Amino acid sequence: MIAHKDKVRIFDTTLRDGEQTPGVSVTAEQKIQIAIKLDELCVDALEAGFPVVSQGEVEAVEGIVKQGLNAEICGLARAVKADIDAAIDCDLKYVHIFIATSDIHMEYKLKMGREDVLNKAVWAVDYAKKHGMQVEFSAEDATRSDRDFVRRVFKAVAEVGADRLDIPDTVGYATPLYMAEIVKDVRTATAKELPISMHCHDDFGLAVANTISGLNSGASCAHVTINGLGERAGNASLEEVVMALQCLYNKKHSIKTELLYETSKFISNTMGIAVQPNKAIIGENAFGHESGIHTHGIINNPLTYEPISPELVGRKRWLQAGKHAGAHGIRAMLEDFGIRPSDEQLHRIVERQKDLADKGKSITTAELLSIAGEIMHNNKFEEKFKLYDFHIITGMNIIPTAVVRLNIEGKDFIASETGVGPVDSALKAIQKIAGEIANIRIREYRLDSITGGSDALAEVSIKVEDKTGNIISARKAGEDVVVASVQAMMDAINKTMLRKLIYSNNC
Amino acid sequence: MIAHKDKVRIFDTTLRDGEQTPGVSVTAEQKIQIAIKLDELCVDALEAGFPVVSQGEVEAVEGIVKQGLNAEICGLARAVKADIDAAIDCDLKYVHIFIATSDIHMEYKLKMGREDVLNKAVWAVDYAKKHGMQVEFSAEDATRSDRDFVRRVFKAVAEVGADRLDIPDTVGYATPLYMAEIVKDVRTATAKELPISMHCHDDFGLAVANTISGLNSGASCAHVTINGLGERAGNASLEEVVMALQCLYNKKHSIKTELLYETSKFISNTMGIAVQPNKAIIGENAFGHESGIHTHGIINNPLTYEPISPELVGRKRWLQAGKHAGAHGIRAMLEDFGIRPSDEQLHRIVERQKDLADKGKSITTAELLSIAGEIMHNNKFEEKFKLYDFHIITGMNIIPTAVVRLNIEGKDFIASETGVGPVDSALKAIQKIAGEIANIRIREYRLDSITGGSDALAEVSIKVEDKTGNIISARKAGEDVVVASVQAMMDAINKTMLRKLIYSNNC
Repeated sequence: MIAHKDKVRIFDTTLRDGEQTPGVSVTAEQKIQIAIKLDELCVDALEAGFPVVSQGEVEAVEGIVKQGLNAEICGLARAVKADIDAAIDCDLKYVHIFIATSDIHMEYKLKMGREDVLNKAVWAVDYAKKHGMQVEFSAEDATRSDRDFVRRVFKAVAEVGADRLDIPDTVGYATPLYMAEIVKDVRTATAKELPISMHCHDDFGLAVANTISGLNSGASCAHVTINGLGERAGNASLEEVVMALQCLYNKKHSIKTELLYETSKFISNTMGIAVQPNKAIIGENAFGHESGIHTHGIINNPLTYEPISPELVGRKRWLQAGKHAGAHGIRAMLEDFGIRPSDEQLHRIVERQKDLADKGKSITTAELLSIAGEIMHNNKFEEKFKLYDFHIITGMNIIPTAVVRLNIEGKDFIASETGVGPVDSALKAIQKIAGEIANIRIREYRLDSITGGSDALAEVSIKVEDKTGNIISARKAGEDVVVASVQAMMDAINKTMLRKLIYSNNC
Repeated sequence: MIAHKDKVRIFDTTLRDGEQTPGVSVTAEQKIQIAIKLDELCVDALEAGFPVVSQGEVEAVEGIVKQGLNAEICGLARAVKADIDAAIDCDLKYVHIFIATSDIHMEYKLKMGREDVLNKAVWAVDYAKKHGMQVEFSAEDATRSDRDFVRRVFKAVAEVGADRLDIPDTVGYATPLYMAEIVKDVRTATAKELPISMHCHDDFGLAVANTISGLNSGASCAHVTINGLGERAGNASLEEVVMALQCLYNKKHSIKTELLYETSKFISNTMGIAVQPNKAIIGENAFGHESGIHTHGIINNPLTYEPISPELVGRKRWLQAGKHAGAHGIRAMLEDFGIRPSDEQLHRIVERQKDLADKGKSITTAELLSIAGEIMHNNKFEEKFKLYDFHIITGMNIIPTAVVRLNIEGKDFIASETGVGPVDSALKAIQKIAGEIANIRIREYRLDSITGGSDALAEVSIKVEDKTGNIISARKAGEDVVVASVQAMMDAINKTMLRKLIYSNNC
């Protein structure tokens, strides 16, 4: 049961603390799917839920137990009989029992004195042990608790057989230095040294550093969540803790890091909580580069501006044109499409795109290609499909319908189609005209309101995938979400075709 | 020029490293607006840009200099004449000069040897000093550089008059321990101790901890960005560093923390980079609570589950119903609307909402009120405005038009209106019928695609503000973005009216 000395044990609590993220609601079936994904990622243990909270939670936990996963499956319980019984009834063999030990929690939430809390903790651990459970015990709000009292509580639960001791920094209030000290406190509190877990929250952005500080001071297990989900600012994120341990501290773990990005995406989509672009390891920008100095460095040797290879976490790097982009980056991007401008042409392309960027305009790859086409007098890079007209009808008790007029190399084509919504019907109408060549699938569709208000400028970002698996992205801003969506789609279709054309012509 | 010994100097680089976030493009005018906001926040210094990159950047930096802000205004320059001249020409008095000192950067990017790099650094600092500039010098990629060489470079630039030394952890590769060591290296490298800055990136989630470790070891200035924007995973975030210094390390700073949230929102909207809900200090969930145990604690004493009061950073806490919500939280939420169920009624309300949550459904406040109304047999809580029908026409070369049929207390009303887009026209048509009572303004409008694809289930979240400044939020999911938007708006209008009704009746 005790983890190998040199290996950090990863205890994932995405399905418990992560599911407590305000706004997250998932079905039992979705929880089971997430558990399977986490098991594929090779977490050592996963907290499947808090069985006493609802019937749906019981079904989810039971369902996860039945999967026969490699990870140890744990359930949360307060130090009360009903909670522990609920965990036992789910056929769990491993329970995470907690009770608060800080004065503020005992006075205002539990309304109990220290001795009562101590007795209740001992009773609960003893009860669970007598029912054959593996028990991990948490002194909730440990980092704001009286140090002597926390030691006493951990000592007492160890005496009745607790298998693991967890130190939760419940409101993210600890510093790395204090985490190191409290781990030493707990290590020396018990007669026999038990494995210690760190459970850190990110209220001041210190969750990863606090977790690692504890691990460096003798703790052997990290409670973490994918994407750093969890109450308030969330928990220490699995991907950051694992990669920091591996790359900066030379510690071993069992995680298949090349599945991190995929797992993160799956959980973000299932739980409906977005990941910000500037999030370490799994944010969209974590391996994206725009500024000239950075893209120049990356082209010569990626390690100049990347701490690790993106493939290590299941990702690919990308470069983007923009105000800070220099000639090296633009040349590399154009070469991706087989386009090789002269130095003088390149200079003019860079000038033009900086000019657009100065006006606050994001430069899409299609726009860059179009600029290049113009400057290089090559009409091959022009948009093949021009959207001349479209209208859409939708509402309640109406089947969403789109009528589209496209111009393809000088000829007009009109088609109408219905769909589940306006964007879907427009895509179908366009595909009806364009046929196989526009055979794309929308992978991601996002809309951000930039200024707020019903007349706000909205920005649509889409990623489409063509038949051969190439991902093309496009963005469009406008006051009308439907029009912006259709225009972004046209942009993506044109880019897809441009890409095909260039590669097939081998220019 | 040297900061007060006990006060940490905050050097904001949102407009330089933050603007290098891939995907960000802002106009000169927008950069000036951001600089004014940062000055109101009371940053000590702000890096306005990188003048040599484009004409627009020059205009932005000149414009910011002309504002006569309290903050010192700095510009970035490579250790080359053109860059430093560009900074001088913007009328800057303060330049941030950098050159890379790591072997990998020197070999693959600069293609220069150590002595050439050293000479170039010295030449550049000397040149800028001779032009009367305050000079902050950065040894780029310092944390991956040879320690002796970094010391030599810092010593040499100090000898020609550098005023400040910055230690950049360019690819976020340092640990807190190494940051402490390198600060000590640099402190002892120069004859006279110069003020030292920390510039940390968040590639492993350690930017805040690394910054603070450096400050605790003798550095006096933190390079930070709002929302942690910046290259790749971004820089250390201003809000996290400042609040951690204040609350956990008892250090002084000049930031008006009550403006943090507002500033974060402004910059997120202007730069178009979203903040994830589980982001410390400024994420939507940072002071939001859903689980029963947490809401129970919060109601008795907010400090049980909040490390700091939300007002300290310009925010308000919120509670939400959900699977983990317990009776205490639901009772508090209903009391907000003046609704006081009996214990037995409360039990039934909680059961019903958990049942919905188990099905993966997020419970809006309107739904909670509707459940409560049903169980308490009080039709006051029913929706007053029922949407019976609507249709919308939009497209290219068409003025977006909506026709709406509402039923208000049994009577039908029909209206049509045009707008800048389908949602705008629908809101206007609804307001035409509902008049003053629906006098709301959409503050935020967000759409998330949950599963991807043009037939994806999209979730619309809106926040509306009524005439008296109350913020009401509503969410709706559906395959048709327009229909979901209109339904979310109806939901918000009904809640707004419900709130008014309850408060005016004083029930």
